[in-house]
Amino acid sequence: MARIDLNCDLGESFGAYTIGLDDQVIPFITSANVACGYHAGDPVVMEKTVALCKASQVQVGAHPGFPDLMGFGRRNMAVKPEEAGAYVKYQVGALKAFCDAAGVPLHHVKPHGALYNMAGKDHALALAIARAVQSVDPELTLLALSGSQMVEAAKEIGLPYASEVFADRAYLSDGSLVPRSQPGALIEDEDLAVERVVRMALEGKVTAIDGTDIAIQADSVCVHGDGPKALAFVERIAQTLRREGVEVRAF
Amino acid sequence: MARIDLNCDLGESFGAYTIGLDDQVIPFITSANVACGYHAGDPVVMEKTVALCKASQVQVGAHPGFPDLMGFGRRNMAVKPEEAGAYVKYQVGALKAFCDAAGVPLHHVKPHGALYNMAGKDHALALAIARAVQSVDPELTLLALSGSQMVEAAKEIGLPYASEVFADRAYLSDGSLVPRSQPGALIEDEDLAVERVVRMALEGKVTAIDGTDIAIQADSVCVHGDGPKALAFVERIAQTLRREGVEVRAF
Amino acid sequence: MARIDLNCDLGESFGAYTIGLDDQVIPFITSANVACGYHAGDPVVMEKTVALCKASQVQVGAHPGFPDLMGFGRRNMAVKPEEAGAYVKYQVGALKAFCDAAGVPLHHVKPHGALYNMAGKDHALALAIARAVQSVDPELTLLALSGSQMVEAAKEIGLPYASEVFADRAYLSDGSLVPRSQPGALIEDEDLAVERVVRMALEGKVTAIDGTDIAIQADSVCVHGDGPKALAFVERIAQTLRREGVEVRAF
Amino acid sequence: MARIDLNCDLGESFGAYTIGLDDQVIPFITSANVACGYHAGDPVVMEKTVALCKASQVQVGAHPGFPDLMGFGRRNMAVKPEEAGAYVKYQVGALKAFCDAAGVPLHHVKPHGALYNMAGKDHALALAIARAVQSVDPELTLLALSGSQMVEAAKEIGLPYASEVFADRAYLSDGSLVPRSQPGALIEDEDLAVERVVRMALEGKVTAIDGTDIAIQADSVCVHGDGPKALAFVERIAQTLRREGVEVRAF
Repeated sequence: MARIDLNCDLGESFGAYTIGLDDQVIPFITSANVACGYHAGDPVVMEKTVALCKASQVQVGAHPGFPDLMGFGRRNMAVKPEEAGAYVKYQVGALKAFCDAAGVPLHHVKPHGALYNMAGKDHALALAIARAVQSVDPELTLLALSGSQMVEAAKEIGLPYASEVFADRAYLSDGSLVPRSQPGALIEDEDLAVERVVRMALEGKVTAIDGTDIAIQADSVCVHGDGPKALAFVERIAQTLRREGVEVRAF
Repeated sequence: MARIDLNCDLGESFGAYTIGLDDQVIPFITSANVACGYHAGDPVVMEKTVALCKASQVQVGAHPGFPDLMGFGRRNMAVKPEEAGAYVKYQVGALKAFCDAAGVPLHHVKPHGALYNMAGKDHALALAIARAVQSVDPELTLLALSGSQMVEAAKEIGLPYASEVFADRAYLSDGSLVPRSQPGALIEDEDLAVERVVRMALEGKVTAIDGTDIAIQADSVCVHGDGPKALAFVERIAQTLRREGVEVRAF
Repeated sequence: MARIDLNCDLGESFGAYTIGLDDQVIPFITSANVACGYHAGDPVVMEKTVALCKASQVQVGAHPGFPDLMGFGRRNMAVKPEEAGAYVKYQVGALKAFCDAAGVPLHHVKPHGALYNMAGKDHALALAIARAVQSVDPELTLLALSGSQMVEAAKEIGLPYASEVFADRAYLSDGSLVPRSQPGALIEDEDLAVERVVRMALEGKVTAIDGTDIAIQADSVCVHGDGPKALAFVERIAQTLRREGVEVRAF
Repeated sequence: MARIDLNCDLGESFGAYTIGLDDQVIPFITSANVACGYHAGDPVVMEKTVALCKASQVQVGAHPGFPDLMGFGRRNMAVKPEEAGAYVKYQVGALKAFCDAAGVPLHHVKPHGALYNMAGKDHALALAIARAVQSVDPELTLLALSGSQMVEAAKEIGLPYASEVFADRAYLSDGSLVPRSQPGALIEDEDLAVERVVRMALEGKVTAIDGTDIAIQADSVCVHGDGPKALAFVERIAQTLRREGVEVRAF
């Protein structure tokens, strides 16, 4: 039976600041990427978010990012691979402490934002991140863009990994994402987006922007919980997948 | 055979900023309190410091502090106990990741600066910290001021603890430190300071500021590595203890 | 003709995080306290907020706070008066740059949160803040709790000041606020709250919690724009004041 | 009479952390670039540094950088031009407050580290910075790499500027610096370095790495005060310039 995970960024609030409808999206997802205090999140938020995941039986992943709270970790930073590796260890360990305290396992690590994007294309950076994850706990799974350098790095060192796909993004024929700056990068038709996810899960295929069918490994779909529209879409995607016979379960 | 630990704060550098002569003090100490990125330290520094401790066979402890880099964690902050607990979990976990990656055990937790001072007197704060440490790993030892509320809290919940004494501070007859604001708070005569430490280690006694002898539990002495004079004092204290038949070893 | 200012904290958003319905509250207020990047706010937010104030002909004030973004500046910090003074200069100057760039005057300075509360009771801290403000620009007005040490400090050094009152807080017979921890501290009846403000503006009097009438200087009322209920209250207070013949205008 | 300014980064300490021998280098320089709290510096340090400059009759400049204390502002960050502009306004204003308080003029603005390097090549970024400076005070001088996009941007909008040269860097024949990654990028022979500066000041010429003589505008030489060797070099360069008849004076 085909199966797929629905992952969502959670725990992005900070101090008095709230982002995300964590309580409302969590019934529909199977794994969470919890911010670790660098680009978002703080220790009190992390503790609450782990408790929320535990109560909802959602797998907890670490979501390390750049030390750029002002930019929400979305701005490229020219950090050295060894710096990035140390940042990842730090953040993964910080979240792991809350997991240990709550008695839930740390399930995976998904780099955030600009770190995710940069490491998807930069092998040295990807390798530093993969090694950092492995050094903290070799059984952790790296959740990374399908076909990216992070997947390559994980394979190279024998780190478990899961391939992430996007419902609302178009793919090039080589399996990479169409850059946001190009026309057609976003799949704005929700019916089509859901249909594409179902096919990725069932057949391991997606139609690239040039019209060709390409193979794609789809272990997990990235969904969002930052507004009513996003929530409705997550609910719909979860229901449709189940109706089509896809098991929605954490990798 | 009497024994005592010599503990020193290490890894307080941050980015381009250097504090402490870590390389020079480490041969004389037996356990290190490694800053965890809140009041001092950063991931790259933490990684290097754990490696230094490993190479020198010095036990690694976490040194969590207030989120106040500008004040080096030395300024009291009115955080709630649950906030302090979350901050401790976060920082302990972050350091533990570097220990796990380096294959060395995390040995203890010693709160830093204002957090140490406040928790020494505030039972609710001390309890929140002790519980936070225990929740991350119940075998961790809390290193805390001899006779303080942190020691009480550790006893109360069954968390291992070690009692810390100060070579250069005078004691009141109830075993607490003479406040720095009072005359005689500092033991400025180095001969006397060393002599007092030896007696605390061998006899479990120290002469209080009122001239009475009091019992004191001395598992570890706090030493400093922030300048040539401090280094010379550490070397001297380590040598004198050994000459007097005290085993200098981590608790 | 009696007059009063309605002041509100604005520009408390930070990076991807939004706090406050600034666009919606601004039509009803006459002066704004703009966060300066320490407890809240960032340069991009400050720039937008100054532009919003300019477009709405609302006076711009600086709202300096403690360097505690995680605690939103609401936690007491044991900073020295000279540190607080330097923090105030820094933040006031930062906001003044956006005012200069936008061609609007910087109108006042109101310390935020824990800094406001601490300086209201601590003369040395209040004096350091008042002197810091005066040193940057002697014509700036310090907006401070009516009857507080900040008002005393401003008088002492000849710094212009404005006395702030609260619609939703009860007063002791000495003119100070009933501490939040005590019963009756909050005026929860909105009719009564509005009525009290009108009387403070027209008569300079308020009924203290012990039932006695006391004199109170009311140059400005603190209002909030952080939710629909707060917005409705601001609108109502502004309308009632005008209907009762009080001019609502910046001090 | 030929004249040149010697500028040095000052005020880079932060909290308990010290960088730079500010007290020792200041007798030899004529203008200072004072860190503004983003990549280095804090309000207390800024206040002391402005006082030091005042006492030494050294011109005070703002030295804004990226919000990256952990990387000391030396890592490229993909900020948008409007973000960079806002960051510059913020930091310039913050320092200006200390100047206003001390009664000394703010003399210039020199972007720091990665911001300096990026803006030297990126016209949109350079223009945003130049406009930010101009908007705060149109009489401020932008201190920027000779021949860089920042100089172009300043010319374009009519902002005063000064061209900076480096004693220890080789130049390409187009007047740009030889990248540090290339052989010969650094002038390691101190005699040669001093000789080159004297010629740049007297003749407006320097020998490029390909052996050709090129014209270079040399309003200011960047010197360093971060160690004994740097100090000795600054003293020597100042003495040699004066002996050769060059007036050493702020632009």
